[in-house]
Parts: sequence; C-alpha cells; structure tokens
Amino acid sequence: MNKNAELIKSVIADVPDFPVKGILFRDITPLLADNRLYRLASEMMAEPFRDRPIDYVACVESRGFIFGGLIAEHLGAGFIPIRKKGKLPRETVSEDYGLEYGKDTIEVHTDAFSKGKHVLIVDDLLATGGTVQAAAKLVERAGGVVSGMTFLIELSELNGKELISEYNYASVIKY
Amino acid sequence: MNKNAELIKSVIADVPDFPVKGILFRDITPLLADNRLYRLASEMMAEPFRDRPIDYVACVESRGFIFGGLIAEHLGAGFIPIRKKGKLPRETVSEDYGLEYGKDTIEVHTDAFSKGKHVLIVDDLLATGGTVQAAAKLVERAGGVVSGMTFLIELSELNGKELISEYNYASVIKY
Repeated sequence: MNKNAELIKSVIADVPDFPVKGILFRDITPLLADNRLYRLASEMMAEPFRDRPIDYVACVESRGFIFGGLIAEHLGAGFIPIRKKGKLPRETVSEDYGLEYGKDTIEVHTDAFSKGKHVLIVDDLLATGGTVQAAAKLVERAGGVVSGMTFLIELSELNGKELISEYNYASVIKY
Repeated sequence: MNKNAELIKSVIADVPDFPVKGILFRDITPLLADNRLYRLASEMMAEPFRDRPIDYVACVESRGFIFGGLIAEHLGAGFIPIRKKGKLPRETVSEDYGLEYGKDTIEVHTDAFSKGKHVLIVDDLLATGGTVQAAAKLVERAGGVVSGMTFLIELSELNGKELISEYNYASVIKY
C-alpha cells in the first residue's frame, strides 16, 4: 500500500458492532470531512480507469453517490444512479441481492444509457461482493458494458473478489 | 432565468404521479448522465457561496450526496453526510420532519464539525422546506453555523422559502 493509501486509511474510524453485533464498521466520515483527502481518495478510485473509454459511472446508493461525482469529473463521464427499490421514477430493471447483513433490491432506469456504452461501477465498499455483482447485472441488463468496478475499501477476508472475478476492479485500501 | 439554467431545465424529465398520485416528479437523471450539464449545475449551486467562508457542505441523503462532492470541490470544503436514521455509526443528533409525501428522520454525527464552523447545506430539491429546516437544526445542534442552503430545483408553489426565511438560500431553477 502506498503512502497516500496509508494516509487515507489513517483517518478511517473503526466502529465495533455496527450496524449489528460482530460487524466492525469502517467509518469514512472523517475522510470526507477533509477536503484534500476526499479529493485524493476519489482520484485514486478513478486513476486505474483513466485510460479506458468510460462513458458513465454507475454509482450505488448511497455511499457510492458520495464518490461518484468526483470520479465522473475525473473521467469526464456521466453519472448514473443505481438506487434502492422504488426510488427511480421511470421504468427500471431491478436485482435482488444478499449483503453482509440483510437483503436488498437495487434498480436502474431501463434507458439509463444507450446500448454498448462503457460503464464503471462505483461503491465505497467491497464486502461480500453481492451488491456490486447485482449492480453489474443491472448495467448489463440495461445494455451497458461493465468496464470495471472501483471501491474505496476492500474487506479482503470476505473475499468479494471471487464473486466479481469476471470483472476488472480496483480498491484504494484493504483490510 | 439565465441561459444555463434554461439548458439545465430542458433536460429534467417530468414524471406524473410519482412517487404517489398527484405528485409531478422532476427527474434529474438525464441531467446527471450529461457530464457537462452535471458539472454546470453543481457549479451554479456553489457559485452564490463562493465568496463566503464555507468550511463544510452538509449534504442530505441521498440526492444531496450527488451534488455535494462537486460543490465541496468548487468551494474547497469538507463533505458532511446528513443521513437517514440508523445509518451513521457513531453518536448522532437527530431530527424528525414531515415532507411532501410522508415523514422521515435525519441524523448527523455529533462531532461532525467543530464549534462555529461555517456550513452550507446541499440538497437537490426545495419543496415544503421541511427536510432542509430539519437539516439546519441538526447542523446548529452539532455546533455549526448555517451559512446558507443551496438547491438545484425549487418548487415555488410549495413556498418552502417561508420555512427557511432566516437563512440565505439559492436555487438554480424554479418551477
């Protein structure tokens, strides 16, 4: 891990037993509060995809939205929100998935991008990989090509990378 | 309304009867998908506050997050998430509020910013003003000074500006 990644890791707060007992939550709010580190983290998430033709960043609600704007700006890409069930107003495709604690459904507008467009999926965290795998299916069902996935944090012991082994992915820091 | 605001308005989609019958939903996803217009909209949200000493942007989950990153960047400010109940891992202050359709609770970390810091509140939409009024109370209870509020869209007929008359606010487009 390089010096910038160490710096980013140093401001992330560990919160035990959140949201449920036994989960060690990695709290990124101190990172976000520091303008310089927030920008640096976003740039590091974008950097591995800078030379690829990314048309859109598809960002997973809610914490993916926080990084998506700056990553879209770095890559000159449009921003596509992948939202929780019932939040997008027009026709959607939808995917259920299990996550580290609980279950959920995410959706994207059916006409979010035209066929064959290159999409980078953005989320703050790679845990079991369930969320981002569902996000990739959504992008593909909406006609997009998943050019990659980028995360701020990867929880290595949950081995999410196995579930997304067919995709390019990058993470800034690992636990 | 100036030419840029007209341009932004022209790509927002009207969706009748969402999320409930009788509500005309203003869908910003076509705006977000256009990198240039998404950046322009964020800059226009930031611009009225550029000469004020803004330490943080406090962004209301979820759509406030979409604009918050770029606005934080434009203003050189840190990003503070104001989240739905139960999402923030450490000690929070919390406020209930009624919104255009339904009720909700938002929270901010008690230690999100140090006392007296200047905070700009960011959300996509000013409707009845209930959400942003609650957000302002949260910022003040956490020790911050509300320097202003900025919105992409203002639904003038709902007269939200009355509820927030003690604050400076700006909106890019009005309906």
